Amino acid sequence: MFTTETQLRVRYAETDQMGVVYHSNYFPYFESARAESIRQLGFTYADMEKMGVIMPVIEVQCRYIRPALYDDLLTVKVILKELPVHHKIEFHHEVLNEKEELLATARIILYFMEAKTMKRITMPEPLLKKLQPYFS
Amino acid sequence: MFTTETQLRVRYAETDQMGVVYHSNYFPYFESARAESIRQLGFTYADMEKMGVIMPVIEVQCRYIRPALYDDLLTVKVILKELPVHHKIEFHHEVLNEKEELLATARIILYFMEAKTMKRITMPEPLLKKLQPYFS
Amino acid sequence: MFTTETQLRVRYAETDQMGVVYHSNYFPYFESARAESIRQLGFTYADMEKMGVIMPVIEVQCRYIRPALYDDLLTVKVILKELPVHHKIEFHHEVLNEKEELLATARIILYFMEAKTMKRITMPEPLLKKLQPYFS
Amino acid sequence: MFTTETQLRVRYAETDQMGVVYHSNYFPYFESARAESIRQLGFTYADMEKMGVIMPVIEVQCRYIRPALYDDLLTVKVILKELPVHHKIEFHHEVLNEKEELLATARIILYFMEAKTMKRITMPEPLLKKLQPYFS
Repeated sequence: MFTTETQLRVRYAETDQMGVVYHSNYFPYFESARAESIRQLGFTYADMEKMGVIMPVIEVQCRYIRPALYDDLLTVKVILKELPVHHKIEFHHEVLNEKEELLATARIILYFMEAKTMKRITMPEPLLKKLQPYFS
Repeated sequence: MFTTETQLRVRYAETDQMGVVYHSNYFPYFESARAESIRQLGFTYADMEKMGVIMPVIEVQCRYIRPALYDDLLTVKVILKELPVHHKIEFHHEVLNEKEELLATARIILYFMEAKTMKRITMPEPLLKKLQPYFS
Repeated sequence: MFTTETQLRVRYAETDQMGVVYHSNYFPYFESARAESIRQLGFTYADMEKMGVIMPVIEVQCRYIRPALYDDLLTVKVILKELPVHHKIEFHHEVLNEKEELLATARIILYFMEAKTMKRITMPEPLLKKLQPYFS
Repeated sequence: MFTTETQLRVRYAETDQMGVVYHSNYFPYFESARAESIRQLGFTYADMEKMGVIMPVIEVQCRYIRPALYDDLLTVKVILKELPVHHKIEFHHEVLNEKEELLATARIILYFMEAKTMKRITMPEPLLKKLQPYFS
């Protein structure tokens, strides 16, 4: 299993008139946390795009348990339970506030695709090599 | 069953550098389509908030099948399969482009809550009365 | 002078916890109104990008006079006071609510650029020809 | 003069199909930088709202010099040139990338207002006391 944690601060722009973070604004949090997760492996999603590989999001699921509030310092967990063998990668996420209350959980599925041909491919070697030690 | 359709145009702001609509930007489309759906019943979500009732989103699920592109004129379907009996309401959504290709499907669960007490309540009478004819 | 009007409905996602539209969310409204404005000429910004021309925003200015509220049906005016002769085009915008109260005014400057070379260019002929009748 | 610097990472969600940060997405960066700026004084904007004071944005101006790109680590400067004496406060901002290239400059005017009455007020004492040492 490979897990990381990223912290981010809720912006005013992300709240809505209910006084909480609007539900869709959690997805950029997850995206940002995945990017930091890959960076901790010594690789970046930006590098991968430069190699011609893109990772479109194919499916998302998110449960909202408690509201995130303006200026909350959130901890966003990234959990990779299995090393992907095909073109599909599935991340789990958890969002906690400073009181360590669980605010939301999510599951995000992305594909590895070659940008030029839009064909599905397997995980690029450089990323695979960085991840393998966590799954053996 | 109660179903409606709303059309909306993809904004440049909603695209990302993959050249497609960023995945979380579908959720404001669904929200907008639900609002138009309620308006077609002769009621508005804004009216409901004025009555002290809010509808937080509790769970979302979305599958992305084909990308939505800048300036696409999208049709967003709202499908209410069952009349809610408790505090929970579940909407289904479909997004189609002008070629009538299915781009995405979603399922969104919201609660009816009293804003003042944050207690779960059943669907407000005025909305229930408008919806009942579609389910008998 | 070339002026158009576009109507759009405020989404919940666009509000913030002050209960009004967050200030930066007016810019996608202006962008959308400009796109509709060009469409009324029988041309689209999307067409222009397909011709290899992009229009990055170079400068914006916006004054917020009264708040826009959730579910407001806004009228967004696009005003082109002068036909651009060089690479620069300057739009003026006004936002009004259903009571015809002025909510905001803006000035947006964009450049015409060739996407491939990122060189500044003059307005593409097809758009120029559509606009000239309004300025003679 | 009171100046601070905040760093933030460009999210994929903030880019558009031109491959750069969409112009309106700089405003949440400025907002976030102002919030961090106030936090460095030992106060928070969230505290101020709890005291019943809100700071709506009244006017913005932004010049875009070079594009910000996905995954760029941006430095956002907050510059307060004068201590406000009335209800109005004017911030200047600069955005730089990791190569210390200037990407954008902005000027943002906000008002201090009492949330309950929506009357303009002067800067709350606790914030004024924190700022005064920088202007004497």
